[in-house]
Amino acid sequence: MSASMKPRLVMKFGGTSVAGVERIRAVARLVKRQVELGYDVAVVVSAMSGETNKLVAFTREMSPLHDAREYDAIASTGENVTAGLTAVALDAIGVPARSWAGWQVPIKTDGVHGSASIVEIGVEGIVERFGQGVVAVVAGFQGVSPEGRVTTLGRGGSDTSAVALAAALGAERCDIYTDVDGVYTTDPRIVEKAQKLDKVSYEEMLEMASLGAKVLQTRSVEVAMIHKVRTQVLSSFDESAGENLPGTLVCDEDEIMEKRLVTGVAYSRDEAKITLVRVPDRPGVAASIFSPLADAGINVDMIVQNVSDDGKTTDMTFTTGKADFDRALKVLEDNRAAIGFERISTDPNVVKVSVIGVGMRTHAGVAQTMFKTLAEKGINIQVISTSEIKVSVLIAAEYTELAVRALHTAYGLDKA
Amino acid sequence: MSASMKPRLVMKFGGTSVAGVERIRAVARLVKRQVELGYDVAVVVSAMSGETNKLVAFTREMSPLHDAREYDAIASTGENVTAGLTAVALDAIGVPARSWAGWQVPIKTDGVHGSASIVEIGVEGIVERFGQGVVAVVAGFQGVSPEGRVTTLGRGGSDTSAVALAAALGAERCDIYTDVDGVYTTDPRIVEKAQKLDKVSYEEMLEMASLGAKVLQTRSVEVAMIHKVRTQVLSSFDESAGENLPGTLVCDEDEIMEKRLVTGVAYSRDEAKITLVRVPDRPGVAASIFSPLADAGINVDMIVQNVSDDGKTTDMTFTTGKADFDRALKVLEDNRAAIGFERISTDPNVVKVSVIGVGMRTHAGVAQTMFKTLAEKGINIQVISTSEIKVSVLIAAEYTELAVRALHTAYGLDKA
Repeated sequence: MSASMKPRLVMKFGGTSVAGVERIRAVARLVKRQVELGYDVAVVVSAMSGETNKLVAFTREMSPLHDAREYDAIASTGENVTAGLTAVALDAIGVPARSWAGWQVPIKTDGVHGSASIVEIGVEGIVERFGQGVVAVVAGFQGVSPEGRVTTLGRGGSDTSAVALAAALGAERCDIYTDVDGVYTTDPRIVEKAQKLDKVSYEEMLEMASLGAKVLQTRSVEVAMIHKVRTQVLSSFDESAGENLPGTLVCDEDEIMEKRLVTGVAYSRDEAKITLVRVPDRPGVAASIFSPLADAGINVDMIVQNVSDDGKTTDMTFTTGKADFDRALKVLEDNRAAIGFERISTDPNVVKVSVIGVGMRTHAGVAQTMFKTLAEKGINIQVISTSEIKVSVLIAAEYTELAVRALHTAYGLDKA
Repeated sequence: MSASMKPRLVMKFGGTSVAGVERIRAVARLVKRQVELGYDVAVVVSAMSGETNKLVAFTREMSPLHDAREYDAIASTGENVTAGLTAVALDAIGVPARSWAGWQVPIKTDGVHGSASIVEIGVEGIVERFGQGVVAVVAGFQGVSPEGRVTTLGRGGSDTSAVALAAALGAERCDIYTDVDGVYTTDPRIVEKAQKLDKVSYEEMLEMASLGAKVLQTRSVEVAMIHKVRTQVLSSFDESAGENLPGTLVCDEDEIMEKRLVTGVAYSRDEAKITLVRVPDRPGVAASIFSPLADAGINVDMIVQNVSDDGKTTDMTFTTGKADFDRALKVLEDNRAAIGFERISTDPNVVKVSVIGVGMRTHAGVAQTMFKTLAEKGINIQVISTSEIKVSVLIAAEYTELAVRALHTAYGLDKA
């Protein structure tokens, strides 16, 4: 049988979108509409909201030091349930469907249990079913290791499953259905005048995801960028969705006509600041600090080395994620002799605020606007870091809302 | 690496035995003891009690006419969770273990989704792990079809998983841990003087399981009998269990020294009586009744054809399971013209009481004792059926307890 010549679409539904029989029926109706519009559809589903947490809690209660392979075998089952139920719901409204576990597709991953990376997806079976008019419902978040064990891709991994499947299928688009209707210029819970973006570039979305916007998993945006998978974020709670791109399209920069200087303002509360006071100001001191942290798997984000007062010692300030904070302090204390600092000063009450936009590449003055705006509000900047398309500053957490609102206004992002 | 030379043991734990973290920890301790006694152990687990019912309810709510393949994909996940948790619990007390899904073992079945039969079990992987000192924890109730889809073995199928695995591994014994401490001469909830049997033959256990004793799934006893798997039923709630065969051993008749005339009294409430009144008394009438019922997949159990009064018509009485009752009536009505009965008379308030024992093969008078005992209590026998090692009678349901107690006493089964 020759493969279907229809365009292909991947539709992904998160935990709140499949949280019960009625929600899954709504998902089936959304899928049916796309089938009727002429697509071969692969659906990727998460576990019902709360299910994975329940399974993880069981595993941790049984043993905090559980084998990661068993964790994966347990934590992956919620997606199998939703995949089966979604196939049943589709069949019930006249749309032929079958469910696929990760190992059945197969979604081949490496053997890093708990946060595996997808290596290859064999889509022959799904494509054959497309030829028979069957919708493929694939369990997200999971794959199979080279040893034939079930793996999981890490929390939020179903987004990555969906984008990678879209890449493997050569899909026209990957639609990520969630409980919000798109990507906003900033968090609408903080800024009432936040606007939904019609389009955002892969690079910008990657920075926004990394910098605290939780709408898409960072890894999924990386995969979308690498494989040029046009990815739409939209709401599963609006059943008129699915036509005319009602959500936010994450796409190539070239596809975005109207370019803004700054596309969004993001913030992350998951930051903790560590300062090593009076470390020797000599070559190699940075390595003596950051190598042991890297060896312990601790990501260090922003770094600033203060100007030396006396030419002999300096202060070194950097940030880690809150989850790594205690462990980072222990690693530093363990290496105290080798590093040679006087004392450690810490501050967990900090927030990272960032402005993001590909326009920065060609326009100067974006950072200056940021610094001036924050200064006018009396907000002290503790650390600064920049990349080609973003500027991030670390400030005291109590100023978060004030800073985000002021920057949103300053860059002309407020809704009219 | 050469295979381990240790004797092998399969230990199966049902839903109440794994109903939560603490219960699974108790299971791990029972397994550890057998490992310390020198066995290579394969553990087969059910889903936590209530989990499979919850998954089945979801599926039925989604669509009463669901695809059986999706039912299996959904209903099988509870066992994967328990298998993973059991492996974690074993690891946590120093017993190396890994979990196996049915498809990973693989437990190969036919493609009859919802009630698949095991065709072959590939034990190479498990045996290799035995050689490394690892306990295998296998998800019960499930397998994989020739098409690579997940199958389930039908309710109670984990018993069959365990016995079939024991056969494939050449295990010394299969221990079925449950919430009762063995097989009794009759239901202890009805007869206070019921006695636990030390041993019971495969044939007797098969009749007892078929006739209403719910302690083992019928199919698992068939597999045990065919492959001569010595199978012990015992309680997981008694942590002193596991040594010196504290439960009931289901074994070959030859292994049982002390033979009783009657081993047990069983009853089944899952019966409904149908009488076709005034069917033509001619050759072929039985076929005209029972062929369409068989075609519809309805099992007919006891059958009696009454003596013809007039030489022209007769009454035909038979029983079906309660679940098939309505469907059986519809099939009969649909075939009314071909059969030619006057009317249908029904009675769902009946119970089948049976006495079982291999001793019947060599001793006459067992049936007579039964008839006499029931007559003395004023209980009318509606239908009788016999096999080589059992006599069953159909009586009014209200006499169930009276009949079972009287027979238990009459055959000398009462505990001193």
